[in-house]
Amino acid sequence: DPNLKVFSLNSNRELASEIASVIGVELGKCSVQRFSDGEITINIEESIRGCDVYVIQSTSSPVNEHLMELLIMIDALKRASAKTINIVMPYYGYARQDRKARSREPITAKLAANLLETAGATRVITLDLHAPQIQGFFDIPIDHLMGVPILADYFKSKAMDGDLVIVSPDHGGVTRARKMAERLKAPIAIIDKRRPKPNVAEVMNIVGNIEGKIAILIDDIIDTAGTITLAANALVEHGASEVYACCTHPVLSGPAIDRIQNSSIKELVVTNSIALPEEKKIEKIVHLSVAPLIGEAIIRVHEEQSVSTLFD
Amino acid sequence: DPNLKVFSLNSNRELASEIASVIGVELGKCSVQRFSDGEITINIEESIRGCDVYVIQSTSSPVNEHLMELLIMIDALKRASAKTINIVMPYYGYARQDRKARSREPITAKLAANLLETAGATRVITLDLHAPQIQGFFDIPIDHLMGVPILADYFKSKAMDGDLVIVSPDHGGVTRARKMAERLKAPIAIIDKRRPKPNVAEVMNIVGNIEGKIAILIDDIIDTAGTITLAANALVEHGASEVYACCTHPVLSGPAIDRIQNSSIKELVVTNSIALPEEKKIEKIVHLSVAPLIGEAIIRVHEEQSVSTLFD
Ligand SMILES: Nc1ncnc2c1ncn2[C@@H]1O[C@H](COP(=O)(O)O)[C@@H](O)[C@H]1O
Ligand SMILES: Nc1ncnc2c1ncn2[C@@H]1O[C@H](COP(=O)(O)O)[C@@H](O)[C@H]1O
Repeated sequence: DPNLKVFSLNSNRELASEIASVIGVELGKCSVQRFSDGEITINIEESIRGCDVYVIQSTSSPVNEHLMELLIMIDALKRASAKTINIVMPYYGYARQDRKARSREPITAKLAANLLETAGATRVITLDLHAPQIQGFFDIPIDHLMGVPILADYFKSKAMDGDLVIVSPDHGGVTRARKMAERLKAPIAIIDKRRPKPNVAEVMNIVGNIEGKIAILIDDIIDTAGTITLAANALVEHGASEVYACCTHPVLSGPAIDRIQNSSIKELVVTNSIALPEEKKIEKIVHLSVAPLIGEAIIRVHEEQSVSTLFD
Repeated sequence: DPNLKVFSLNSNRELASEIASVIGVELGKCSVQRFSDGEITINIEESIRGCDVYVIQSTSSPVNEHLMELLIMIDALKRASAKTINIVMPYYGYARQDRKARSREPITAKLAANLLETAGATRVITLDLHAPQIQGFFDIPIDHLMGVPILADYFKSKAMDGDLVIVSPDHGGVTRARKMAERLKAPIAIIDKRRPKPNVAEVMNIVGNIEGKIAILIDDIIDTAGTITLAANALVEHGASEVYACCTHPVLSGPAIDRIQNSSIKELVVTNSIALPEEKKIEKIVHLSVAPLIGEAIIRVHEEQSVSTLFD
């Protein structure tokens, strides 16, 4: 369909190329540069009048640069008479600022939603939002894809020798662990952190039976990797035979790589929702591609079919 | 008035402190930090419920960081029940992207206006917009201050020995040169660049009499300093006795400092609408403060008086 156009900005060009080949189109021609003073300049180099445009951009680090690229691109597409402007954000930055935890805090995840709509986005396709409630921050249609099936399929295909247990590193992630466990026909366990008194170190309790089992930790985001590596060490101490970890979004900032390297995690499985720079591609980290999932979602959206059937 | 609060973000803290002392208030307590992954976190540390809040932030380089800080701060203030949210942007970034010069370009200056309004700004106070038409990009009140009186007063007080001529480095800046010339009771001249044939070097013509005079070049923004230093050299070649230059907004990116250092410009006079890092504070550059002007404007806005009388 010549009316279907896919453009990539700067956050994740490799993924965007993969998605384009899944769909069977060429990436649209477009330059995204900086002026000498750091201002973004975007040049769309082919007509998109009347087209359904899909823009691939994760608002991963540097988040403010990537978000502004996206907003400016949307503005340019709108003024160039695109018929629909569909934003594909495999990683939705600022998702963890999704509520006022204290007085006088911003809700930046909602602000980002408002900014995208103001710029002119007509639909959002995203993956594993930190809180599914963020869908409600938008007044335009949003398709919320899930990374769990991709992660589960990897562990299924990796014939592992022993009983599995799927572990949530905190209370917030139990639903995700439950979904993974169903796909792998395994039980779940939960790391139950608690601080007995203020200013005393946290105690890592484990709810569920992990003794002698292969534990698979699952989270949506691994950022500084503090939570996940402490959880892994606690699992080993409590008798797990091996510890794997997986997540959809490898933010991996600050000390993350060192912590993972020095932890008892045998293998960390992540997706390419966030592009990893070369120095973060260590041997312990396995990369899975979300391009088939996102490509299929774009085809279905474009053909006005349901996306939810992707997870059956 | 305890209902008047002034906050500073990260672009220009020194100017913000000066503005606060002009007004006679303390800067509001607020931390603007980064999480490990680069996401902005803002914490307003005092109540602003029912207050008229003024936020000082230039969207100077790094423009996307500074713009996002501002948007997130506005969101936080709105949710904390500020009565009015007044954005003080001494320098308005992206102002040069104020029209579609080619097909399929964004109009980022308009996008920025929309983003500020969407976040919740109720008024904007700014200085020497690259094009005064940008005022019309807003649907909220905007006060547009002028730097020319500050620059003119400096040259007036600097008893200069000889006849002055005020020079616009291009056709776009003639109105500004005219305003400066009126204040200094001097004639104007214009650098009239023209390219005789494609791919041939530009010819620098000078319209007006500069022979034996002290030339003062004036522009709104000096960015890479290419235009202004070429203009200065042309003025000397054509017989000006000395060349000064001045501008409101010292962007000074890339080769700017070297070019100014090696040019025939005797002195470059700029304002602190954009904070200069130490390495850009060379001897040739004279800094004037816009704090008295902006402080006075805030007082008048707060007392619901006209700001335009500031320029009488
Ligand atoms: N980019 C970030 N990096 C680290 N912590 C964050 C970030 N954004 C938000 N937070 C904090 O993470 C908490 C929310 O995480 P959660 O409880 O897992 O939903 C809040 O206390 C936020 O202040
Ligand atoms: N940050 C920037 N740095 C350099 N040039 C820019 C910048 N933003 C816009 N421009 C270009 O400057 C021109 C507008 O400047 P002017 O003609 O002086 O209004 C347009 O051609 C823009 O593409």
